[in-house]
Amino acid sequence: MLRSHTCGELRITHVGQVVTVSGWVQGIRDKGSLLWIDLRDRYGITQVTIETENASKELVDIARSLGREFVISVTGKVAERYSKSDKIATGDIEITPEKIAILNSAITPPFTIEDDTDGGDDIRMKYRYLDLRRNSVRKNLELRHRMAIETRLYLDKLNFLEVETPVLIKSTPEGARDFVVPSRMNQGEFYALPQSPQTFKQLLMVGGFDRYYQIVKCFRDEDLRADRQPEFTQIDCEMAFVEQEDILNTFEGLVRHLFKSVKNVDIPELTRMTYADAMKYYGNDKPDIRFEMKFVELNDVVKGKEFKVFNDAGLVVGICAKGAAEYTRKQLDELTEFVKRPQIGATGLVYARYNADGTIKSSVDKFYNEEELKKWALAFNAQPGDLMLLLAGDENKTRKALSELRLEMGTRLGLRDKNKFACHWVIDFPLLEYNEESNRWHAMHHPFTSPKPEDIALLETDPGKVRANAYDMVINGVEVGGGSIRIFNKELQAKMFGLLGFTKEDAQSQFGFLMNAFEFGAPPHGGIAFGFDRLCSLFGGAEVIRDFIAFPKNNSGRDVMIDSPSPIAKEQLDELGVALQIPAVK
Amino acid sequence: MLRSHTCGELRITHVGQVVTVSGWVQGIRDKGSLLWIDLRDRYGITQVTIETENASKELVDIARSLGREFVISVTGKVAERYSKSDKIATGDIEITPEKIAILNSAITPPFTIEDDTDGGDDIRMKYRYLDLRRNSVRKNLELRHRMAIETRLYLDKLNFLEVETPVLIKSTPEGARDFVVPSRMNQGEFYALPQSPQTFKQLLMVGGFDRYYQIVKCFRDEDLRADRQPEFTQIDCEMAFVEQEDILNTFEGLVRHLFKSVKNVDIPELTRMTYADAMKYYGNDKPDIRFEMKFVELNDVVKGKEFKVFNDAGLVVGICAKGAAEYTRKQLDELTEFVKRPQIGATGLVYARYNADGTIKSSVDKFYNEEELKKWALAFNAQPGDLMLLLAGDENKTRKALSELRLEMGTRLGLRDKNKFACHWVIDFPLLEYNEESNRWHAMHHPFTSPKPEDIALLETDPGKVRANAYDMVINGVEVGGGSIRIFNKELQAKMFGLLGFTKEDAQSQFGFLMNAFEFGAPPHGGIAFGFDRLCSLFGGAEVIRDFIAFPKNNSGRDVMIDSPSPIAKEQLDELGVALQIPAVK
Repeated sequence: MLRSHTCGELRITHVGQVVTVSGWVQGIRDKGSLLWIDLRDRYGITQVTIETENASKELVDIARSLGREFVISVTGKVAERYSKSDKIATGDIEITPEKIAILNSAITPPFTIEDDTDGGDDIRMKYRYLDLRRNSVRKNLELRHRMAIETRLYLDKLNFLEVETPVLIKSTPEGARDFVVPSRMNQGEFYALPQSPQTFKQLLMVGGFDRYYQIVKCFRDEDLRADRQPEFTQIDCEMAFVEQEDILNTFEGLVRHLFKSVKNVDIPELTRMTYADAMKYYGNDKPDIRFEMKFVELNDVVKGKEFKVFNDAGLVVGICAKGAAEYTRKQLDELTEFVKRPQIGATGLVYARYNADGTIKSSVDKFYNEEELKKWALAFNAQPGDLMLLLAGDENKTRKALSELRLEMGTRLGLRDKNKFACHWVIDFPLLEYNEESNRWHAMHHPFTSPKPEDIALLETDPGKVRANAYDMVINGVEVGGGSIRIFNKELQAKMFGLLGFTKEDAQSQFGFLMNAFEFGAPPHGGIAFGFDRLCSLFGGAEVIRDFIAFPKNNSGRDVMIDSPSPIAKEQLDELGVALQIPAVK
Repeated sequence: MLRSHTCGELRITHVGQVVTVSGWVQGIRDKGSLLWIDLRDRYGITQVTIETENASKELVDIARSLGREFVISVTGKVAERYSKSDKIATGDIEITPEKIAILNSAITPPFTIEDDTDGGDDIRMKYRYLDLRRNSVRKNLELRHRMAIETRLYLDKLNFLEVETPVLIKSTPEGARDFVVPSRMNQGEFYALPQSPQTFKQLLMVGGFDRYYQIVKCFRDEDLRADRQPEFTQIDCEMAFVEQEDILNTFEGLVRHLFKSVKNVDIPELTRMTYADAMKYYGNDKPDIRFEMKFVELNDVVKGKEFKVFNDAGLVVGICAKGAAEYTRKQLDELTEFVKRPQIGATGLVYARYNADGTIKSSVDKFYNEEELKKWALAFNAQPGDLMLLLAGDENKTRKALSELRLEMGTRLGLRDKNKFACHWVIDFPLLEYNEESNRWHAMHHPFTSPKPEDIALLETDPGKVRANAYDMVINGVEVGGGSIRIFNKELQAKMFGLLGFTKEDAQSQFGFLMNAFEFGAPPHGGIAFGFDRLCSLFGGAEVIRDFIAFPKNNSGRDVMIDSPSPIAKEQLDELGVALQIPAVK
């Protein structure tokens, strides 16, 4: 071992010992008679101090030849520091070197290896191996490892078996786009990379495995958004002989265990909200309930006056921002601009200030007198000092826009503390949603999700009304996990594929193995999958999952460090029986 | 939960309790007045006993309607058995059912769900979900899970960080064939699936991660042999600031920990053998040292007589099979046939029996008298009762053939007990091997392996003589893991690529990121990877790794259960910018 100790472990108790530490030169200060080297490794920083007059010329020469990020090994005696530092764990000691060996030199890094680096996103991604040296990045990945350990610990104790499912599987048209892999041994045929191990974990249940989990890479060939990666990691779980209640209990247990063991945060038992309520009160199937500010519907209160906008609207709905009555005209204009942004799409914003003196002043005073506005305040349960914000229009669009405004107000009012965690379940999702483009029903969760038994009759008559035994776990307005009780009966599964527009032949050729499996004694089962990257970023108090992935890809799906994807040799293509055929104009 | 207990946990202490168990009907015996159901789940088998005269008609009717592999739930009272069974853990009790609910019916499985099944390999793979219900298969996967847990436990304790490396990486021509993935967002470009995370783990070392591991899927598009899978799992590890000695100690520690914790077997400290000795004494770089039977070279002893075969041979070499002097003519003929098989390729076998009476009788008595044969015996250190077996010919081929014969004799003499484990290191591998076909040097391990410092000068003059800091761990003649100390210097790495026939441009375009990384302060580092599937099969006492993989592929790389690979839609190909181009004749 090229060290006896790490750069993070020497303490006052080591004084007098001869040690060897190795690491990177974080910095050097040369005051002539005294020369300090800060030596860094994964575990910390240790100060190496040279009194140049008492040291050999050779040692001093080596020390003066060092640059930032040189890799060196230092052997010497641990000494008590004259002026101690309480900023670092090794701040009581320093090393008086007897020998410094340069293990490798370093050219100047393209950005500083500091928590607050001067490197932009692109350059840090190109030199990710240098970015990884930064404390903040490494800590994220240490957190990720800890999360994985605690996840496994919790599930192992409950008799879950970690089983690896295959990565080279079969392409299916349902869901997002698959990445495919041409087969050389079976030319003209392709494997697909799994979007999730869904069918395999169900087959494990059919195979009697009872409780399965896996922390597993999944793949989606989607046009990427800032927070999506083409490959991502799931905590994937499935249980047999259970009902929805059992899954909810088991996995809120997991998340509470993670919060306790990783962050020492006590999370109370999770509350549950139906999808219908989530949409009604928050306009959103993953509401951030760190703060209240529920939607209040106002059709009954505001319609029938001279204000055409409200009269014509399918829905008038608002929120009450506590204590925001003193918002300035400028702030209110900002909010109006916010809701009118194309991605939010409201046509305007109506507000009413409930002033501290009891008067109410609105942007539509022309149409609503004080008495009318008092009725608004009553509906909102507003108090003097509050600000009422109203949107109007098409029901679905307006709810969506108000949800954005609610989150914006939550942020502005400091109600979304990233160190506070509000976890809850959203349950009773619809089984199906109608897609206008493809002109057919799509599975809201996936085609294997079981309808609620009491709603099965509606499948024939009113499919959109059928609720599913499906559930999402939401933390701070982020969907961290979702799952469902599965269909485990061949006929119901066939009916489901029929509703989704599969012909019998397609259903058989793509999912025949699963439906056949259901004939051989499939147990009732259900499961859940957590987005592990997202969960880690949430625990780390960050917004961007990329910071919690060692080697992420950029928004074009490109790894700029290794420069991939990249062209391959014609011989490789020939062996695979494929050729490039790129349209001249996109 | 659709059960209060599993089918494996009820004991005499539960007698009198009302319980619910769920599972599969393993079998039914109906004696008229008494009816027994064996109910099976992952945890065991519980007997359900119905006295038909005391039970309701409804209950008896349901019980009589059950078939094998039906999924049922049974609620009833735990009773002490009249005739106990010590064959199963629940053999003291039975359940007197109050209610039996059929959760799912089952058609007759295509093979019996028993340890000794009547199903052949093909049918079991097609219905793998039923195969998984068999105790023996499930136990293999439970062992695998246990191995993973203990691996992580050991490495976590030593401060290794589990870091996920990407699956969508870049194709490189060195090594085996890559699976590739066409990129839709970057048409004409491809990702490759990793054959190992080699470069990424090295970059983690450059990034200061110090100690890395991962239990990770890797991929090789090879023509498959019986014991190879296109996707396989590695325990992949890397350490910085180490020398070879540190890696050997750390990872023999891992394997000894696995043996102790998983199998309660104490493995002594591992012995080490150089590659040169392995080839000299065993003709094999992964010798099975559960038994001795070392090679004895006989050129000096046997040459110069009238026997042309020996005189013309580059090498005459043999083994001494203890106690096999009484082998019959038929047995000796079998051995001769064995070594003459094309895949072994010897031209013949010479033997000499050292009889119990002290005489020696050989198959070449015409050329060697008793006195000469005594010299043989002396060379072999043979005793009366032993059998000497000699091969002759080209040096390399003869060693290889004798290695096969040695293993065959080990098997025949019962010296290869699968419950005995002989683990050791083979070290000092050559850095390079010459490939006649491509007419150039190939890396024996991989291009990142460091030559031994004292041999570096030979790189210019005699590359074949350069030894590497590379090592394999061998258990019972199986290479379970291998690794090396890596090059961490840009110039040496560039020289290595040069030796391997890379142009500067190719080296830069394919591995530039790694060589550049070496300029920014790369620490000395090295690592190892274990074949996890193989390690599990070895621990499980089996030959075939497929039995330790939940959903394996067959020898054509096909998953016959889901029928993959399979054709994909033309629209998918179009989006990817590729077209099929399959040659009419292969």
